[in-house]
Amino acid sequence: MENKKKPLILVTNDDGITAKGIRTLISIARELGDVVVVAPDSPQSAMGHAITINDTLYVKEFLQHDYDHKEYTTSGTPVDCVKMASHEILDRKPDLCISGINHGSNSAINVIYSGTMSAAMEAGIEGIPAIGFSLCDYDHDADFSQSRDYVKQIIEQVLEKGMARGVIFNVNIPKATKEEIKGVKICRQANAYWVEEFDKRTNPYGKDYYWLTGKFVNDDKGEDTDEWALDNNYISIVPTQYDLTAHHYIGELNTWDFGK
Amino acid sequence: MENKKKPLILVTNDDGITAKGIRTLISIARELGDVVVVAPDSPQSAMGHAITINDTLYVKEFLQHDYDHKEYTTSGTPVDCVKMASHEILDRKPDLCISGINHGSNSAINVIYSGTMSAAMEAGIEGIPAIGFSLCDYDHDADFSQSRDYVKQIIEQVLEKGMARGVIFNVNIPKATKEEIKGVKICRQANAYWVEEFDKRTNPYGKDYYWLTGKFVNDDKGEDTDEWALDNNYISIVPTQYDLTAHHYIGELNTWDFGK
Repeated sequence: MENKKKPLILVTNDDGITAKGIRTLISIARELGDVVVVAPDSPQSAMGHAITINDTLYVKEFLQHDYDHKEYTTSGTPVDCVKMASHEILDRKPDLCISGINHGSNSAINVIYSGTMSAAMEAGIEGIPAIGFSLCDYDHDADFSQSRDYVKQIIEQVLEKGMARGVIFNVNIPKATKEEIKGVKICRQANAYWVEEFDKRTNPYGKDYYWLTGKFVNDDKGEDTDEWALDNNYISIVPTQYDLTAHHYIGELNTWDFGK
Repeated sequence: MENKKKPLILVTNDDGITAKGIRTLISIARELGDVVVVAPDSPQSAMGHAITINDTLYVKEFLQHDYDHKEYTTSGTPVDCVKMASHEILDRKPDLCISGINHGSNSAINVIYSGTMSAAMEAGIEGIPAIGFSLCDYDHDADFSQSRDYVKQIIEQVLEKGMARGVIFNVNIPKATKEEIKGVKICRQANAYWVEEFDKRTNPYGKDYYWLTGKFVNDDKGEDTDEWALDNNYISIVPTQYDLTAHHYIGELNTWDFGK
C-alpha cells in the first residue's frame, strides 16, 4: 500500500472472541493495519441479522497479553458488536471491517442465517468496506493456517481498491491443505437450501422437544456458484448486497391488480 | 378464485401469537382459505433470520375459542416457526405463507433486521409463496382495519397468480385512514439507514450498560422507493429476494488480483 497512514481494521465474528478463527484473523489484520476487536462474549452462530432491542447491552475490555491492540466483548449479537464499535468504542470510522474466520461454511443460502456475514453486512450498511470469512470446517480446532496467504491477499486487495458502496464480500474457504487450494473464484450464491429434519425427543418430565437438524441440498449445477468453487477446492468470493429488491420482477408486478 | 379446493394458508409473525396484527391477518386469511397459525409464544422483533440451533424447541397448541382452525406457539424465532410448521406440524405444503401484520415499519433497510420478513423469506426459500405485512405504527393497539381490503386483495392476487420462485413480497402500510390510503405501489427498497444512538446508563451496582436507539435517515429521494410511497400514503410492495449476489459487480472483481 502506498498510503502511509495505517488503516484502522475492525475485527469481529460470531463464534465469540476466544474462537481460533478470530485469533487467526486478528493475527493477519495486525500485519496490515491498526486493529480493534469487538466481538461477542459467547458464541452467536445462526443469529442472522438479529439486534438487541429488548435487553440491555454490556461492553467489557477483553484483556489479552500477547498483543498491544485493544479488544472488547459485548453481551450482544455480531450486529450489535459492529454498532457498538462504530458508535461507542472507536473514535474514527474504520477503513475495513473483517468478520470471522467462521468455523463452518457460509456459502449459498447459509449467508442469510449467518452471524458472521450479518456483522459484515452491518458494516457495509454503515459505509465501511467489509468482508466475512468462513472456513468449511466446523471443528473448534480447525486448521486456519492453510489459507492464511489468500486471506491476507483478499484483505490487501480491498484495502487497495476499496469496495463499491452496498457490496460486501462473502468469502468461503474449502477444507483443504495449502497445496490443494487452487486459488480464488468470484462466484454467485448457489441456489442450494436446507431440508430440515427435527430430532424429536422427550424430556425427563414427559414433555416433547425438538432439536433443529437438517440436510444441505444443492440442485444448482452452475459452475459459477460458490458451491462449485468450494467443491473444486477454490476459495469462493460472492459479492453480496443488502439491497434485497428483486428488480427484475417490478415490471411484471405492475401488470397485477391491487385495487385502485 | 376458480380453484375449488381451498388454499392452505400458514400464518405467522414476530410480535407473538396474541398481537393484534396477527389476529387481523388471521381473520382475513380465514375468508380466503384453510388457516393454520404457527407463531412465537413471545415477541421476537428484530430477530432477523436467527434460528435456534443451540437450544431446544418446544411446540404447544394454542387454545383459542373464537375460531375452528388450529393454532400453535413455539419457543423459537419466526424462522423456527416456519420450519416447524413445514416439517413437523403441517401434513402438506402450504399454498401461501403470510407473516405479520407487524406492529411497525419494515421498509427500506428494516427488511434485514425484521423477524416478520425473515419468516416470509424462510417460506420463500422452501418454495412457498410468501408475503410479509407491516403497518407503520408501533402501537400495540394500532388500527389494522383501515387497510383490510388492500391486504385481502394482495393475498388474493398472489393466490391467483402465484409468485416467481425466489421472490417474497415485503408489504408496508402507511399509518393512515382508509380514505387517506391512495392505493398500492410496486417499489424498490429505499437506500435509507439507521444512525445509532446508544443510550448509556449506569445500573444500581455501578456498572455501565447501553440501550440501542437510533434515528432513521433517508437520503434516497427516488420516487420509486418504498419510503416515498409510504410518505405519500401508498401501500408499498417491494419484491424481495434471498439471492444476495451483487451480480453487477462480478465483472469488475474478475479484474482484481487475488493471487493465483
